[in-house]
Amino acid sequence: MYFGSDNQTGASSQVLAMLTQANSGYTHGYGDDQWTNKAVEALKTLFECDLEAYFVATGTAANSLALSCMVEPWESILCHDSAHIILDESTAPELFTGGARMRSISQGEGKISPKHLQDYLQTIGTDYPHNVRAAALSITQASESGLVYTPEQVSVLSRMAKDNGLSVHMDGARFANAVASQQCTPAELSWKAGVDVLCLGATKCGALCAEVVIFFNKELADTFTYRRKRGGHLLSKGRLFGAQMVGWLKDDHWLDLAQHANTQATQLAKQIATFDCLQLVWPVESNELFVIMPKGLAEHLQAAGAEFYDWYVDTLPPNITIAEDEIFARLVTSFVTQDVQREDFCDLIRNYFSATKA
Amino acid sequence: MYFGSDNQTGASSQVLAMLTQANSGYTHGYGDDQWTNKAVEALKTLFECDLEAYFVATGTAANSLALSCMVEPWESILCHDSAHIILDESTAPELFTGGARMRSISQGEGKISPKHLQDYLQTIGTDYPHNVRAAALSITQASESGLVYTPEQVSVLSRMAKDNGLSVHMDGARFANAVASQQCTPAELSWKAGVDVLCLGATKCGALCAEVVIFFNKELADTFTYRRKRGGHLLSKGRLFGAQMVGWLKDDHWLDLAQHANTQATQLAKQIATFDCLQLVWPVESNELFVIMPKGLAEHLQAAGAEFYDWYVDTLPPNITIAEDEIFARLVTSFVTQDVQREDFCDLIRNYFSATKA
Amino acid sequence: MYFGSDNQTGASSQVLAMLTQANSGYTHGYGDDQWTNKAVEALKTLFECDLEAYFVATGTAANSLALSCMVEPWESILCHDSAHIILDESTAPELFTGGARMRSISQGEGKISPKHLQDYLQTIGTDYPHNVRAAALSITQASESGLVYTPEQVSVLSRMAKDNGLSVHMDGARFANAVASQQCTPAELSWKAGVDVLCLGATKCGALCAEVVIFFNKELADTFTYRRKRGGHLLSKGRLFGAQMVGWLKDDHWLDLAQHANTQATQLAKQIATFDCLQLVWPVESNELFVIMPKGLAEHLQAAGAEFYDWYVDTLPPNITIAEDEIFARLVTSFVTQDVQREDFCDLIRNYFSATKA
Amino acid sequence: MYFGSDNQTGASSQVLAMLTQANSGYTHGYGDDQWTNKAVEALKTLFECDLEAYFVATGTAANSLALSCMVEPWESILCHDSAHIILDESTAPELFTGGARMRSISQGEGKISPKHLQDYLQTIGTDYPHNVRAAALSITQASESGLVYTPEQVSVLSRMAKDNGLSVHMDGARFANAVASQQCTPAELSWKAGVDVLCLGATKCGALCAEVVIFFNKELADTFTYRRKRGGHLLSKGRLFGAQMVGWLKDDHWLDLAQHANTQATQLAKQIATFDCLQLVWPVESNELFVIMPKGLAEHLQAAGAEFYDWYVDTLPPNITIAEDEIFARLVTSFVTQDVQREDFCDLIRNYFSATKA
Repeated sequence: MYFGSDNQTGASSQVLAMLTQANSGYTHGYGDDQWTNKAVEALKTLFECDLEAYFVATGTAANSLALSCMVEPWESILCHDSAHIILDESTAPELFTGGARMRSISQGEGKISPKHLQDYLQTIGTDYPHNVRAAALSITQASESGLVYTPEQVSVLSRMAKDNGLSVHMDGARFANAVASQQCTPAELSWKAGVDVLCLGATKCGALCAEVVIFFNKELADTFTYRRKRGGHLLSKGRLFGAQMVGWLKDDHWLDLAQHANTQATQLAKQIATFDCLQLVWPVESNELFVIMPKGLAEHLQAAGAEFYDWYVDTLPPNITIAEDEIFARLVTSFVTQDVQREDFCDLIRNYFSATKA
Repeated sequence: MYFGSDNQTGASSQVLAMLTQANSGYTHGYGDDQWTNKAVEALKTLFECDLEAYFVATGTAANSLALSCMVEPWESILCHDSAHIILDESTAPELFTGGARMRSISQGEGKISPKHLQDYLQTIGTDYPHNVRAAALSITQASESGLVYTPEQVSVLSRMAKDNGLSVHMDGARFANAVASQQCTPAELSWKAGVDVLCLGATKCGALCAEVVIFFNKELADTFTYRRKRGGHLLSKGRLFGAQMVGWLKDDHWLDLAQHANTQATQLAKQIATFDCLQLVWPVESNELFVIMPKGLAEHLQAAGAEFYDWYVDTLPPNITIAEDEIFARLVTSFVTQDVQREDFCDLIRNYFSATKA
Repeated sequence: MYFGSDNQTGASSQVLAMLTQANSGYTHGYGDDQWTNKAVEALKTLFECDLEAYFVATGTAANSLALSCMVEPWESILCHDSAHIILDESTAPELFTGGARMRSISQGEGKISPKHLQDYLQTIGTDYPHNVRAAALSITQASESGLVYTPEQVSVLSRMAKDNGLSVHMDGARFANAVASQQCTPAELSWKAGVDVLCLGATKCGALCAEVVIFFNKELADTFTYRRKRGGHLLSKGRLFGAQMVGWLKDDHWLDLAQHANTQATQLAKQIATFDCLQLVWPVESNELFVIMPKGLAEHLQAAGAEFYDWYVDTLPPNITIAEDEIFARLVTSFVTQDVQREDFCDLIRNYFSATKA
Repeated sequence: MYFGSDNQTGASSQVLAMLTQANSGYTHGYGDDQWTNKAVEALKTLFECDLEAYFVATGTAANSLALSCMVEPWESILCHDSAHIILDESTAPELFTGGARMRSISQGEGKISPKHLQDYLQTIGTDYPHNVRAAALSITQASESGLVYTPEQVSVLSRMAKDNGLSVHMDGARFANAVASQQCTPAELSWKAGVDVLCLGATKCGALCAEVVIFFNKELADTFTYRRKRGGHLLSKGRLFGAQMVGWLKDDHWLDLAQHANTQATQLAKQIATFDCLQLVWPVESNELFVIMPKGLAEHLQAAGAEFYDWYVDTLPPNITIAEDEIFARLVTSFVTQDVQREDFCDLIRNYFSATKA
């Protein structure tokens, strides 16, 4: 019953096998090797376009380095109020951008809406250099509330951003889950919808540590290799990333893993919906569930070994309130989640309510 | 009819005279001179306490350097949504703090309310080092909407801040106007109300360029001289600041200047209130007026040589809306504003309405 | 004949086996897992003391983050003129320290001598905040010229540093090779010799990517976790590092690997010394050889598939000059270097000279 | 007998008079005023070319902001070992450049020689992004040893710099003294000799605080206004700078002031040369003298009220040594130095030697 996070697994066996295979033999260092090259080619095929792709070990590095190529230090980055980059990555964006401003423009809706963006862009001061120019919009796909932007929704935001001189970043830590959810192509959900730079995360969905910054807008990539090296993010044994990515992409493995996680989440959501005292806060569109439940139940579950996290109550939509004896929990499924885990979890819920009713 | 800004004047004659007097003769450089020493002593007397005081040339430098002594690069600074430090000082706070996060916690009320602060502190994540710790609260006195925090209001915010581990910064670019408005002592409006560091601005109210960072909490000052030098803000001819400050403080000159500006604002507000088509947005508590007026009138006034600025519409309180044919304007009085300027301004308004009615 | 770099191998089989073993099962993220804990315990045992240890993926990250805990942004870091941190890590130290100064104090001797340090400390200005205070000394072990500091040599430098208020950093990218060379304990070559912070590298000597910042002076570690997260260097799947380190340290595996590489270097040096036209620049004390050779020979070797790099001629000692038709090359052995590689290499040399003489 | 520094005076009477005149009346803020405009026009006339000019309050700000427009954070700035920017301006260059590297390339000769530059450029690594690319050369005019680069010398260095992709910065804190010394035009000593950006200092030579960053290479100025604002260096009452500069440039006033200081230095040098026990270290080419003298004499002079500073002994040329009972002193003349000061100073020396001989 491990619903804590999708980063609490190891690598998938296919990814690990490729890593093991790549371990032998001599290669040049710093990404100048056949595994890295093969991985970049696989990404070009996957996204059906030319692109520049650079590997790093963490999502925080990927996002911050990507954003540092998109804004000047006296400009700002717009994002949702609960975006990972503003909530969970310390002040990494400020470090790597040389001190650009982070600015949340959306609250309480789980995704950035065109209205959020429009309202902000209409009221922002433009008396430069006094005011801070908005230069990048960051969209999280799937969002921190487990919601997925459709290609059309991404397009609308991207167009609005570009009309105002902003470039578009996508934090794709769960991009695989989003693609699996939308049943569209990776291209449709990224550059065809106006995304300039995508941080594609494999770690949460089958890799051990493999994140890749993909520049569809190649002009933005000019300084990336300098920034990556300077940030200590250029690994000497580049095959580590290349091999994982090759294994992850091979035969749609990445999509199978994501689909598995999504399906587990959907099924768990259905099971949870059968209990009156548990409230699903958002529709389940990827591999995360957000649930309001009685505190007593939460303690009961955790005592029995179930893992999940309390979540930020300020991310709740305005129409939903939480009582003093309730908690707001996030449950995450992954590529290793098994049916039995869900069943055990629901058994525990049933037991709890039987006991408390009795 | 110069209501553009209180920084569009020169120095008061008393300040200029002292500067001229200080120009002669030899002194040591970098603030090691009798004028600087005299100014610091005068500040101690004024604030009735021991303190550390450091001069810089701009309010942006004062605020950013002060804040850099109060937060780590992985912490955040809380302020009102229209605070000068977040709206009009580029990303200077990020530069000088090494990339700390700026975070607005209040919108639409002209001042930070205890509820704003409490709400934010209750929902902020505390899973360090992932989340960003709030480490400083910045209060602008008088606020960017021309409102003044009473000593009691400052105290309530300070107490709440300190109970949560935040230190308290006051942007006192118009501190003189606030003191004049409150008829309290400078001490009561600063350290006695819990302020750790005050950036006291003389420039807007009679000096040519003189801002002073005052540490009531002297422990926070440990690294200031390094930061000031490194920021290029240590002037070689320190007498420039010392002399201005000595002249500004002498015989309550600063308070007379501020009182003059405030009185002009109050009187202008009264005159404006007589016109039905002009709406004062906030009560006038210092030397700024915020007015909604017909666009046609604004053009008429500016064509006749009146100066004032369009202001940020997102700083309007939620209950006030602005029509398409209206503008939101800020008018600022200063120590040189004359009665005749107000009268000429009101004559122009009258003329306009006579003409349009006819 | 792969003498390009010791980072052009994969992981040793023991390290890879442990990584594979650790891949299964559920753990908490971000280093809160049993593998990381076990690795830290193993380091305490190895170094015979309490310590704080933090894993990162690259040597550049390790060094820069370590140094950022040791100096203020207005202070400086002293190092050898050819130190990796000043020559090969871009401006990462400046990034992570918030802009501290890098300062080389030694040229042309392959190691920092006490005289270098003393000379610098005696002439440096101390008129703060104008001058830049020296706050840390960085020693590379083994040095970039393949030389090893004895425990006594480290002690002398450390004592001099501390007498002048500097703390001591050791870049231990090849610490294993140095220990193997000195036949002393890791403790004797680090904290017992006055080292405050050691960046211990496993990557070059058997791991895939595993570097650990070890604080013997635990007070310096206060802010490390914030800095690592903020630098994007906190991996979610911490077992990656933990497992590698456990495998690397188990049964003195690390020392065997290092000893193998050192022995290969020593033997290659002996072979090279038999050729008149090749000149060994430094005594071989670890796993690197620095050789002056005819350009024609170098081209011949590389055409035949031998790999090695041209090296920085300004690192040559003052008494050694290089002719126009010569090159200065670095050859590195590793834990996978085989006897046959050396023999093939020497055969090529012999062939070349036979051919040219003929 | 004030030979401490040329920043220990006030403003010249002509500069102060212009400042007083500019104090009256209303102007726009932030440099959008007639005084600033007039000053920029005067600079264009003086330098016989189009240019961009921006005022700041300190030489440290001018230099650091200028350099920040010339290098990326992963590049380096080359300068003389005793350059003010590397020795006396804390780590301001690192702050404003976002962490670029400072690198001294010359020691012991008082000026950068073409050989220094050539040697460095030949040996520097070019394996990017690992190595740090040299991107700017900074020349101090007059140098920190009081020496002046001739137009031809500047040209040679500039050409070499540009051939290697570096742009050329001139720290002109004493540019006026250098022009007076060379009897050439300001244009000949700056852009005609290849200087891209000149930081022209008026403060040391007659102003109260007025430094101006002059971009002859206007493309480099693109981001300057953002950087200045963000650094807290955009003064609201811009007339302060404009008026000083107008007064300083009017009727060759600046050159008269510089000539006066230079002449005083030359005469003092002649007087000092008459004493056997005092040794002039460098030829006097501007307004600074560097003298080795007996410690006893130094104490005698200072006890009698003479002011001068001990200087960095590591700036001594290699052929000059200093005995234990000697000190190395810097004496600076200024636009207010009077003959009587020199005479009193020499009388004191005579008295001292009479007394010690007796």
